[in-house]
Amino acid sequence: MSDPVAELVALLSRLPGVGERTAARLAYHILGSEPDYAVALGGALSTLHSRVRRCEQCGNYATEARCAVCSDPKRDPAVVCVVARPPDVAAMERGGAFRGRYFVLHGLLSPLDGVGPEALPVEALKAWLARDQVAEVIVATPLSVEGEATALFLAQELSDLGVRCSRIASGMPHGGELEYTDQITLARALEGRRQLG
Amino acid sequence: MSDPVAELVALLSRLPGVGERTAARLAYHILGSEPDYAVALGGALSTLHSRVRRCEQCGNYATEARCAVCSDPKRDPAVVCVVARPPDVAAMERGGAFRGRYFVLHGLLSPLDGVGPEALPVEALKAWLARDQVAEVIVATPLSVEGEATALFLAQELSDLGVRCSRIASGMPHGGELEYTDQITLARALEGRRQLG
Repeated sequence: MSDPVAELVALLSRLPGVGERTAARLAYHILGSEPDYAVALGGALSTLHSRVRRCEQCGNYATEARCAVCSDPKRDPAVVCVVARPPDVAAMERGGAFRGRYFVLHGLLSPLDGVGPEALPVEALKAWLARDQVAEVIVATPLSVEGEATALFLAQELSDLGVRCSRIASGMPHGGELEYTDQITLARALEGRRQLG
Repeated sequence: MSDPVAELVALLSRLPGVGERTAARLAYHILGSEPDYAVALGGALSTLHSRVRRCEQCGNYATEARCAVCSDPKRDPAVVCVVARPPDVAAMERGGAFRGRYFVLHGLLSPLDGVGPEALPVEALKAWLARDQVAEVIVATPLSVEGEATALFLAQELSDLGVRCSRIASGMPHGGELEYTDQITLARALEGRRQLG
């Protein structure tokens, strides 16, 4: 394509949630802004994949061989939280409630999409558990069909390693109203009830 | 900033309608996509301002000295449609109803934002009208306060040049329901009524 604006619109509209109209609006906005901004954004994108790698231990995105969490000596080495994707780590870190380390699967079991057990880095996780003094693996995959299937699969795979394997709780979200809560969540909230007082 | 992902998120969240959450979602999507895509998008952005200039006649974005419309001999040279911004030209061209040429103001009179008459390229428009055989100028600025003020201002400025100056019609949009139409639009639709049959 020889029209730079049309070319930019075509590339932007491949982003999730960005239709052709939004892409055109963004392209015109960028054209109307300072050239410095377009050059900075362009540079950040062009160099992104070469500057970002995967942490050799946990698989999360990192700039060094080990990510900031894995190389932080203040994190508890005894607990590993398994998540599906890098943004899940960012969400957990925003909360600040977890002080252990992470392991990023970069996917979930999904037979319908052709993602089987061999696509998950289970051997890398097992190697970590065998190498270090890990006492507990918390499986924090999503509460979806794929997330649950992956959690069960991991529990089986890790059952021989002498590591406690747990699953994050399922129930009513903070501030949730019973009236607007789906039946599966309600059933899980009942099932997972805890003694009061 | 040394974290490439945080850097990209910060840059993306400066786009209109893109908050920090959306920016993070886009950044992770791009990281999870083929590096080729990020490099292509980055290149399109970095080179955007150097590849796009303003048409010497109409002011619209162009890759050559004159834009595609101004250099098309099949366009009617007698009619010039004045619009506020380049996307307005794109919208008119999608319709295909207009066969003349455009003039892009790149702004509207807006005293509250400190945009006065001197900020609009009125001299360039006058020079074009004096140079060529333009019979009519259609002012297609938006039907907003700023657009209307700019239209009145242009009509005054061009009144001595022997060029007919017209304004696009205001009224009910196609498919519009009276019940859901605002009072100003209804008043304008009444005022601009035309003889039937």
